[in-house]
Amino acid sequence: VTSSLGLPALSRVAICGGTHGNELSGVYLLRELQKSRQEEAPDSVALVTVMSNPRAVQQCRRYTETDLNRCFTDATLSSPISDRTPYEIVRAQELNALLGPKGSADAVDLVCDLHNTTANMGTCTPTSRGRNHSIQPSMSPVLLHLCPLDAMEIGPQPHGVIRADIMGIMAEGVRLMLDWVCRFNSGEQFKGDKMEVYTLVRNVDYPRDPATHSIIAAIHPQLQDRDFCLLHHGDPLFLHFSGKTECYPWAEPLYPFFVNEGAYYEKGIALSLAHKNTVGIPPICVQRD
Amino acid sequence: VTSSLGLPALSRVAICGGTHGNELSGVYLLRELQKSRQEEAPDSVALVTVMSNPRAVQQCRRYTETDLNRCFTDATLSSPISDRTPYEIVRAQELNALLGPKGSADAVDLVCDLHNTTANMGTCTPTSRGRNHSIQPSMSPVLLHLCPLDAMEIGPQPHGVIRADIMGIMAEGVRLMLDWVCRFNSGEQFKGDKMEVYTLVRNVDYPRDPATHSIIAAIHPQLQDRDFCLLHHGDPLFLHFSGKTECYPWAEPLYPFFVNEGAYYEKGIALSLAHKNTVGIPPICVQRD
Repeated sequence: VTSSLGLPALSRVAICGGTHGNELSGVYLLRELQKSRQEEAPDSVALVTVMSNPRAVQQCRRYTETDLNRCFTDATLSSPISDRTPYEIVRAQELNALLGPKGSADAVDLVCDLHNTTANMGTCTPTSRGRNHSIQPSMSPVLLHLCPLDAMEIGPQPHGVIRADIMGIMAEGVRLMLDWVCRFNSGEQFKGDKMEVYTLVRNVDYPRDPATHSIIAAIHPQLQDRDFCLLHHGDPLFLHFSGKTECYPWAEPLYPFFVNEGAYYEKGIALSLAHKNTVGIPPICVQRD
Repeated sequence: VTSSLGLPALSRVAICGGTHGNELSGVYLLRELQKSRQEEAPDSVALVTVMSNPRAVQQCRRYTETDLNRCFTDATLSSPISDRTPYEIVRAQELNALLGPKGSADAVDLVCDLHNTTANMGTCTPTSRGRNHSIQPSMSPVLLHLCPLDAMEIGPQPHGVIRADIMGIMAEGVRLMLDWVCRFNSGEQFKGDKMEVYTLVRNVDYPRDPATHSIIAAIHPQLQDRDFCLLHHGDPLFLHFSGKTECYPWAEPLYPFFVNEGAYYEKGIALSLAHKNTVGIPPICVQRD
């Protein structure tokens, strides 16, 4: 008999959409949740729904002045506000007051932040534990306890476009997450399990013109849409506009993800490369007071 | 023996990219053409390459203040400029001075304007003859003579993303167009042919909340990615976020195109509907002086 690990109840859950204003599955799913909140929320969960960046949503842009999703560092959350502070920093501090303060006893127990990607990544849960950035290709509710601030990342979907299939998958993901939280809070015991976790090794930028910094190659057609398919030395990585193929130069095979994400051109990321690990999840149950 | 229709030589050709700054195939193909122009341009053609909206390209947005592609009306091209004139209107007048003036003897003989769409439309040539908006699902060079200001529209590609496959198709389209123009100018006789032309009947908006104007439905999964597939009465059109399916309400079957084009949400167009016609193209050759 294995004894379960007791963990605190997830009493207060926040669902956030529109952290990036042109990732439309989350924007419209959130509006639907706000209409039907009364029926949807399970009894044992206090649900908060938040449109994270309403100004960017209104303009259908990722952000208006700076990327909101990079504003939740302790330094930015405690920086003084002036007339010239970017909107997103002001908004991050508002969200921290509403849902946090981050790390405090007053904070909600779980944040589910809804995102889309142009990459063919399916449904993923990017998480950040200290400096260790990881991604799981299907959401494991058990993971929620390890990383209380999580994103749900679903693609491929062009930014500024809503696809019914992608929005349907996100709606089902949110339903499963809330259902799991409700069952957990009600005392159900969950068996141990294993889970695939991809841990970031490095980001790879597009080949660029040294003088203009303009990109001079696209993701190779043989790599496009093949996120999480292992890359080996010599596999095609980029197709230069000149016609030349540039290959994977490393000896160690790694897994690509965020392949050709539209919002990452400006961040200098053409794809990310990861190790795959299998992580054991212990049996868990809610910790009774 | 059928005698050929004699048409003037296409001596001066302009290729434009970045009319919409986030439609990246044209942006990067244009930069490549500008690097290699000397080798590429056939002898019998004077080729001009233009980045239409450099400010929007730099920001990777469709436009900065107003849609440049709607600024080429006679009224806008002759409107007075002040400090408050939107950048794109100023730029349209610059482009008209560079490539036109529109309709004058000084104008270039052919403009090929490179566009992308998020819709699954393949390679199309949208044209406008008076008030009759048409689209051809594959580019017919003979059409160039009927509509000297043409676009080449290729999808699906997310805005702000470059896909090597889509850029490759566009590069091949430009190469074929220039090759055809060169052969035509050199005196080659072209046989008559037939061509499919789709003529706009109406645009259809997304279902919207009457109070907020927010969309309340997405393109139905059975219609998504099926541009140019005939729609009949009762076929699924929209999937409401509430779960309800809304069907094609008209008795007359029509062909959908620009299905779920990201830039058209703001224009109130979820899809366009067209008649299909077959147009006869006469045999043509260059008109000798």
